[in-house]
Amino acid sequence: MSDSRPIGVFDSGIGGLTVLRALLEALPRENYVYLGDTARVPYGTKGAATIERFAAEAMRELLSRDVKSIVVACNTASALALESLQRDSPVPVHGVIEPGVEAALRVTRGHVGVIGTLATIGSGRYEEALRLGHPEIAVLNKACPLFVPLAEEGWVEGSVPQQIAEHYLHELREAGVDSLILGCTHYPILKNIIAAVMGDGVHLVDSAVVLADAVARGLASNGSANGQSASGTLSLLVSDVPQRFAQLSQRFLGRELPEVELVDLESQVAG
Amino acid sequence: MSDSRPIGVFDSGIGGLTVLRALLEALPRENYVYLGDTARVPYGTKGAATIERFAAEAMRELLSRDVKSIVVACNTASALALESLQRDSPVPVHGVIEPGVEAALRVTRGHVGVIGTLATIGSGRYEEALRLGHPEIAVLNKACPLFVPLAEEGWVEGSVPQQIAEHYLHELREAGVDSLILGCTHYPILKNIIAAVMGDGVHLVDSAVVLADAVARGLASNGSANGQSASGTLSLLVSDVPQRFAQLSQRFLGRELPEVELVDLESQVAG
Repeated sequence: MSDSRPIGVFDSGIGGLTVLRALLEALPRENYVYLGDTARVPYGTKGAATIERFAAEAMRELLSRDVKSIVVACNTASALALESLQRDSPVPVHGVIEPGVEAALRVTRGHVGVIGTLATIGSGRYEEALRLGHPEIAVLNKACPLFVPLAEEGWVEGSVPQQIAEHYLHELREAGVDSLILGCTHYPILKNIIAAVMGDGVHLVDSAVVLADAVARGLASNGSANGQSASGTLSLLVSDVPQRFAQLSQRFLGRELPEVELVDLESQVAG
Repeated sequence: MSDSRPIGVFDSGIGGLTVLRALLEALPRENYVYLGDTARVPYGTKGAATIERFAAEAMRELLSRDVKSIVVACNTASALALESLQRDSPVPVHGVIEPGVEAALRVTRGHVGVIGTLATIGSGRYEEALRLGHPEIAVLNKACPLFVPLAEEGWVEGSVPQQIAEHYLHELREAGVDSLILGCTHYPILKNIIAAVMGDGVHLVDSAVVLADAVARGLASNGSANGQSASGTLSLLVSDVPQRFAQLSQRFLGRELPEVELVDLESQVAG
């Protein structure tokens, strides 16, 4: 049994390409449609109702491409909209919160830090998921709003990013967290600087690899993986193509890009 | 003769409140409708076609509120969309580029720096407008993408903003520009740090005051100012209300906010 329909991957912009990268490594034979809502990026500074509406529009676009499952490769959309997406979708929808929590629980000795956007941290979803069944775990949350623009600017080393990271992370370090969830798809781009500020012995938890495992298990369990002999394809949809798109995307995906197709998420009739 | 219809003021988000502030000071008897496209902010990192579409949608919303004129209080939208807005609008449309250029030409000794978003600087509009009729003027442009998130984060003093400003501005200082156009409505929030990096003797040109003069002249010339005895009103429309909206808005406007109304710019039928 096999299913050659693509896996839909959705992010507010290009940060989710770090998740796509892990999926391409774990499941190279699958076909992918990646959708970045680059016209309305970022989501992480916006309100819950807006994020939920944007995510629903993105899901409709992916469903119109006949995807067999959807990966919400955006922590903000996963934190604020996953339940409503799962309720309304005819195909399985995977978020990035649960895999990150699962990965943190594997390594922590009991004190977990979580960093993310204002909306993700404000939602409390990580804390809720970490403490579900593990009420003894201490959780310390911190929103880091400048990390996304720093990563998009490609300013990932030197004194300025170091000081910004110090500004956001010193409390977490001083509180003695032993594991830190990188709760935003942009943050792996800043991993070196975050590791330097947190110091040795703090596990940095990047949910992309654990998520890819979860997607692989899902495909295996319902026999919907693509045929073994297939070699996968990749389509890239965006709602805006800024000047520096190709340059940015290569930084996040780590390979040459396919041609991009421009889509209008706003013209869809609600339904 | 008098005209009590409101003046519509439009920005990608809340940066334009610095322009509204100057309008409220110069023309306190006018009624205002301010529209911030907070669901899709920022515009400055996005492509020309997207910015033009967003600006057209904002203009339609303001026209539906029976405004007598429109102020595009966003340098990115002014740089990329002013011509099409003016072509399609039945009422006068003012941008912030021309007033900034006019103000710079009054003070410069011949070497002007321009800072703005990636889209504004990429458009070349400031340079074009500065050199029109003044081909002898030297113009040096620099995009400063992190200034907007810094201003929104309220991180306007200390070593980090200082170093970021130094990173973007040192070339302009070393080249000897004598006047610097703050080509983004967020930048007045960072004025102290920009002034410190540029040093004494460099004029910082903030277009808000000159724009307010231009709007006042426009109203006077066609007899459409509001009656002298009137005291003005202010309505605030936004496409998203993030958690920290009130806090941010007060930083930019410098006074208590009226109640905000949520609008959906995307549901409008084109035409």
